[in-house]
Amino acid sequence: MTLDEILKEINEAETIVILTHETPDGDAIGSSLGLKLALEKIGKYADVIMTKYANMYSFLPGSEEIKEKSGIQNYDLAISLDCAILKRLDNKEYFEKAKKTIVIDHHGSNNMYGDINYVNPVSPACSEILLVILTYFGIEIDTKIGTCLMTGIITDTGGLQYPATTADTFEYAAELLRKGVNISEICKKTLQTKTKANFELCKRVMEREELLEDGKVAFSYITTKDMEEVNAKEGDHEGLVNIGREIEGVEVAVFIRQKDNEDMYKVSIRTGEKVNASDVCLMFGGGGHPRAAGALIPGTVEQVKEKILKELKKVLK
Amino acid sequence: MTLDEILKEINEAETIVILTHETPDGDAIGSSLGLKLALEKIGKYADVIMTKYANMYSFLPGSEEIKEKSGIQNYDLAISLDCAILKRLDNKEYFEKAKKTIVIDHHGSNNMYGDINYVNPVSPACSEILLVILTYFGIEIDTKIGTCLMTGIITDTGGLQYPATTADTFEYAAELLRKGVNISEICKKTLQTKTKANFELCKRVMEREELLEDGKVAFSYITTKDMEEVNAKEGDHEGLVNIGREIEGVEVAVFIRQKDNEDMYKVSIRTGEKVNASDVCLMFGGGGHPRAAGALIPGTVEQVKEKILKELKKVLK
Repeated sequence: MTLDEILKEINEAETIVILTHETPDGDAIGSSLGLKLALEKIGKYADVIMTKYANMYSFLPGSEEIKEKSGIQNYDLAISLDCAILKRLDNKEYFEKAKKTIVIDHHGSNNMYGDINYVNPVSPACSEILLVILTYFGIEIDTKIGTCLMTGIITDTGGLQYPATTADTFEYAAELLRKGVNISEICKKTLQTKTKANFELCKRVMEREELLEDGKVAFSYITTKDMEEVNAKEGDHEGLVNIGREIEGVEVAVFIRQKDNEDMYKVSIRTGEKVNASDVCLMFGGGGHPRAAGALIPGTVEQVKEKILKELKKVLK
Repeated sequence: MTLDEILKEINEAETIVILTHETPDGDAIGSSLGLKLALEKIGKYADVIMTKYANMYSFLPGSEEIKEKSGIQNYDLAISLDCAILKRLDNKEYFEKAKKTIVIDHHGSNNMYGDINYVNPVSPACSEILLVILTYFGIEIDTKIGTCLMTGIITDTGGLQYPATTADTFEYAAELLRKGVNISEICKKTLQTKTKANFELCKRVMEREELLEDGKVAFSYITTKDMEEVNAKEGDHEGLVNIGREIEGVEVAVFIRQKDNEDMYKVSIRTGEKVNASDVCLMFGGGGHPRAAGALIPGTVEQVKEKILKELKKVLK
């Protein structure tokens, strides 16, 4: 069984590196730290390498040990978490140079780029897959590991609220809460707290929010100038795409964010049941999940808006 | 046992009325309709009487049968749900004239005004208490009853995120999801959907949000004129108090809403661990829970703000 093979590789490796996707979210960071702490419990040391991550996740146990670079070039084992394709893997050179590679993920679009691949697209979070794996390995999920993994589950399910949340997810939550994991506090820190910069950006996004196509499409944007004016840091744009999504009657929320002061925008699309966000973003060389996807589109705000609207008009007919 | 007495009264009554507090929230409506549907399963018909309720709850099974008034004046049995004191009970004349009365609630401040009282202050929602009671009665929680009760739990716990949420709550969620209750859809309808009027009010509240006392206090307001200008309806002011609460560093969020175009404001206070909201509101003749409380204070926006700040300065020292 794949999980036995994974455990065998972990046991045989002397040096292990854990990697995840660029601009890591709560599931990327939570699953990485949860795995690191779990490996330490069975006497294995693993490096977690990330170029940068949002300050809001610094409460996670083990986060103080996240490295930006490592002196080791050729790890015995590299484990990629929550990352569908090698191209998106942060610090992928460590993965490419490792003697053995493992991919653990919950994206249906994962193209199995590891020597061993454990991908479950039905799982709402990579962190939930790790809960299953670690339990299979017989590693006790203590409060620290539980806090990391629950953070991943909470952030990837919008606080256990998105449709991907399963009955198992709620049962894991019950079990971890009984073990002392402070779920309410994790929700407060990751979902219910806005930095002042994020609050100012929210105001601008709301002020500019346009309802188009009979109120079915919400559109808004943020420029590099906005980010500078509010002194925004890594992660301060998180959640802005959800503002349009929450307005009554909206089927498609489009949020675009300028890249490096150029005529280039990072597009985020969130949809209800009627439109496949991934299909729309594929038209622009992007992709993602059916309800949440992204792409990079050149142009000014107005030009990018028109390009997206043209595609949306086809599917909203 | 109290629950056996309650079942005995239900069995003996020919006419039953279910009542709840004024301006009913999701727990008030969800528990009322859940109980009504459950009683129907054991061959009992019950009226749910409410003066008015927010349109967002009209998706709940049984909501089409909610009455504004009843032809029956003297019910055999009146059941009050989610209401701490008789003064706050909507249509309390039916309760006062009933031959027998039962109070089921989760407020610690409940003063036991019924002939039989079942109050559990540890439960995060009256709807969760009903889950326990109905299970004890041997009434199967079907999808419709589950939808009503889960709505009450979700709205009173901010989507299972507030500290009052217990491991039991998560287990009930797992069980009800397996039975077909669409938890994600309930969250979307009650927590993630803003009416256009609510969206416009949010914008105004955010624009006016003031950070005081070194950023520990957030203050904002809405006037009757605002409500009129955005064409606000019942429930459209819901959630506005949480806007200030979510800003990083805020210990106390104060939101005040003008009453009937007069120099009179409905004050809502939400606090973190350091301040007892109920104690502060008690100073103005109000009350509530330690983390969420309210009061009615006369004055203009500036006057009301100064009155509250004066009290907050004392406890924030």
